[in-house]
Amino acid sequence: MLRALREALPGADYIYLGDTARTPYGSKGQATVLRYARECADFLWHQNIDLLIVACNTASALALDTLQKQSPCPVIGTIEPAVKACLSRAGRGPVAVIGTSATIASGAYQRRLAELAPELEVLSQACPLFVPLVEEGFFSGEIAARVIEHYLSSLREKQPSAIILACTHYPLLSPGLSAFLGAQAALIDCAGAVAEEVLRLKGVPRRMGGKDSGSMDYYVTDQPARFNCLANLLLEGCEVRSIKIESL
Amino acid sequence: MLRALREALPGADYIYLGDTARTPYGSKGQATVLRYARECADFLWHQNIDLLIVACNTASALALDTLQKQSPCPVIGTIEPAVKACLSRAGRGPVAVIGTSATIASGAYQRRLAELAPELEVLSQACPLFVPLVEEGFFSGEIAARVIEHYLSSLREKQPSAIILACTHYPLLSPGLSAFLGAQAALIDCAGAVAEEVLRLKGVPRRMGGKDSGSMDYYVTDQPARFNCLANLLLEGCEVRSIKIESL
Repeated sequence: MLRALREALPGADYIYLGDTARTPYGSKGQATVLRYARECADFLWHQNIDLLIVACNTASALALDTLQKQSPCPVIGTIEPAVKACLSRAGRGPVAVIGTSATIASGAYQRRLAELAPELEVLSQACPLFVPLVEEGFFSGEIAARVIEHYLSSLREKQPSAIILACTHYPLLSPGLSAFLGAQAALIDCAGAVAEEVLRLKGVPRRMGGKDSGSMDYYVTDQPARFNCLANLLLEGCEVRSIKIESL
Repeated sequence: MLRALREALPGADYIYLGDTARTPYGSKGQATVLRYARECADFLWHQNIDLLIVACNTASALALDTLQKQSPCPVIGTIEPAVKACLSRAGRGPVAVIGTSATIASGAYQRRLAELAPELEVLSQACPLFVPLVEEGFFSGEIAARVIEHYLSSLREKQPSAIILACTHYPLLSPGLSAFLGAQAALIDCAGAVAEEVLRLKGVPRRMGGKDSGSMDYYVTDQPARFNCLANLLLEGCEVRSIKIESL
């Protein structure tokens, strides 16, 4: 997500917060996710941000409305951009959304797809083992392939034309997903969709995108060393600071 | 664990606390696990308990010393009982401990085994995907078998005589573990070992074990409904109350 945003708006200053002390969100309940998301947002609001991007799909699905009501700045989540991108790629056959248990159970993606394209069949499937698979480095290989097959066999039979990867981690499984689902199924990565939405924002705040290369600040709530490894894989090498959110 | 304890001491009153709002602990850092464990213990100490059992191996490995120093009542963790049970079953060949990343990285089991049996070779292996496998119901079958093979192939070559399952979830994988490791490898389940240790306690508090059947109180910090499903699987059907730990 951050990589896509920096490509779209390299001159902006970014503050990244990863709530590693309480992840994963995707297996937790609505009230808990809402509370965690609000606490994280509160930390970022206090940094005088111009725009809040809720990169976590579970937090977007369960907490976006509340954050938008309380935020002093615009808030962009993953659902609206991903749904639009999905519909622009949808062909014949149904569309689908796959995500964490909490995201799928919330119905947020399914509702928005049904609102914008009531004629389309919308499929959904929770894939709760995908996040731990990715976090433990099983991006490809036999185990990843078996887990993909386990969750997505029924969905494949319905031949979806576009599938929203409604979780930050899922794009890392893209090669295996494509191999299993076939080339006719477009995989919709939320990161690119969100970056496009940011560029479409009217009245992009002045400070955003003024320079050639903006600053990067990384915060995590636990294990900066572990995050550094992941960050070196996903982002450029970076210094990561550990913070304690007060009510954590 | 609770089941083994109730079999050993059916007359005792039990208070169970599951910190479901912040699990898993096994992938988190020492300072965070220590803080969470202390907050959970604090909740239980305020219920005037006679004995605190730290059933989570990660919390035992990273926080037991601190909890023991601060506790107004005796504290039993998983390490000492499991290490004793392991050594009583150890035959020729090395012994091994498998657990979460945090448990294995702490070295707590390995150190205690080396202290009590310096002549023994001690193997260890973190199996971070085992907890999500169990939580998502992959107790057996092809995927579980592949993951077991992935983590334990090197360990099997060394033909361990006893293996501590140093995580509450791992005994649910026992059939697959036995099939892969062979019958000569004794699997040490911490639950039974802890129950035996409780029975060995000198001066077992008066209130403990006085009745035929004690009371059961269940608390979780998130998703009582989800926990209920798991509890119905693992325990008898029970009512589960949701609590919010203050500093959560």
